[in-house]
Amino acid sequence: MRDANRLGNAMKLHAYGRSSASFRVRIALNLKGLSYETVSHDLTRDEQRDSHYLSVNPQGLLPALEDDGAVLTQSLAIIEYIDAKKPEPPLLPREQLARARVRALAQLIAADTHPLVTKRVAQRLRDDCGQDEQAVQRWRLHWLHLSFRAFETHLATSAEDGRFCHGGSPTIADIALVPQAVVAEQLGLSLNAYPLISRIVEGCLQLPAFQDAHPDNLGRGEA
Amino acid sequence: MRDANRLGNAMKLHAYGRSSASFRVRIALNLKGLSYETVSHDLTRDEQRDSHYLSVNPQGLLPALEDDGAVLTQSLAIIEYIDAKKPEPPLLPREQLARARVRALAQLIAADTHPLVTKRVAQRLRDDCGQDEQAVQRWRLHWLHLSFRAFETHLATSAEDGRFCHGGSPTIADIALVPQAVVAEQLGLSLNAYPLISRIVEGCLQLPAFQDAHPDNLGRGEA
Repeated sequence: MRDANRLGNAMKLHAYGRSSASFRVRIALNLKGLSYETVSHDLTRDEQRDSHYLSVNPQGLLPALEDDGAVLTQSLAIIEYIDAKKPEPPLLPREQLARARVRALAQLIAADTHPLVTKRVAQRLRDDCGQDEQAVQRWRLHWLHLSFRAFETHLATSAEDGRFCHGGSPTIADIALVPQAVVAEQLGLSLNAYPLISRIVEGCLQLPAFQDAHPDNLGRGEA
Repeated sequence: MRDANRLGNAMKLHAYGRSSASFRVRIALNLKGLSYETVSHDLTRDEQRDSHYLSVNPQGLLPALEDDGAVLTQSLAIIEYIDAKKPEPPLLPREQLARARVRALAQLIAADTHPLVTKRVAQRLRDDCGQDEQAVQRWRLHWLHLSFRAFETHLATSAEDGRFCHGGSPTIADIALVPQAVVAEQLGLSLNAYPLISRIVEGCLQLPAFQDAHPDNLGRGEA
């Protein structure tokens, strides 16, 4: 664990560069222009299970956000908090059906996809289920393809998608999609079969808020 | 698939009795006193993958809610929509840090627990990973214990829990917790090790809104 430079009352983000849930929160903070301090916990060294961090987040998962004397967990809950704390630019549309659509797209990734392809699941498949690397890879690609197909169909059957998943500005749907797409490509999944996803991800990654949050572009203290 | 009695503009809930994400939405609708029509899709017969239902929800997962000409998916997104549509009684506290806490508890279940113990995951473990029933059971109990331990610690380290996960009235945290606890007990997990969870679940199940949503208590058309 490594503490970045301390700022007075800045929010403190417990994160790891290659954790895609951490990546989501970084994007949201960047879109809002909020400054924050990063405390990096190296997942590859299981630092998220250190007793100190467990006292911050008993689940031992990343990210967590410290703000105003409180510790917030779960990336989507953190992002809705950030959105309420600094309303502009909004990360959810105003209208209720539209909010539900955007939340559902984000949850398709955060609840139905990401939890199945995490490091802790791969470890369990190896250590307790005796699966080799090839089987673990097949497992990950299975869930990724299933979800991306559903996500693509959601986009294709809605009149709401535009430059982004919902209209002309990024929402929590894009914030959830992009890190998962980056992980998927690293695992060898080609986004060519998903042209709408592909176009949106490409568009997002042209924005500084997404670029600066990308694990490849983090400074030393944040990675 | 079976259509219940049709009501004019009533909301239509695509659900299955023993789907715990459907259970969540039923609780929310009951707490709000909203009437709805149920379209039941039998998960044990894979009816959620019928082409008709796939045209409603391309992900082929339950639940989905039809309202106002739109189809909403993802239980927590649906519940936030219901909460906005009929604000009383509120399913989230007003204050932003409290909202984040309640959403995080709900997501601890909906994102980090439930997706790992679903029927589709058990099927994959059997069919593609060659796991026997004992190994599938071990897998489920592993993730359930891990999450319940974290949930219990969240409750124990907060001043906010009361009769319910957050204060004196049910929120989305209780709505997510109760169906998962019911599933866990069906799988043979005893809640004795989690006294705060146990007390809250017991208290919730004394309320008609939770009782009436319980898979054991559904009428024929809803089960």
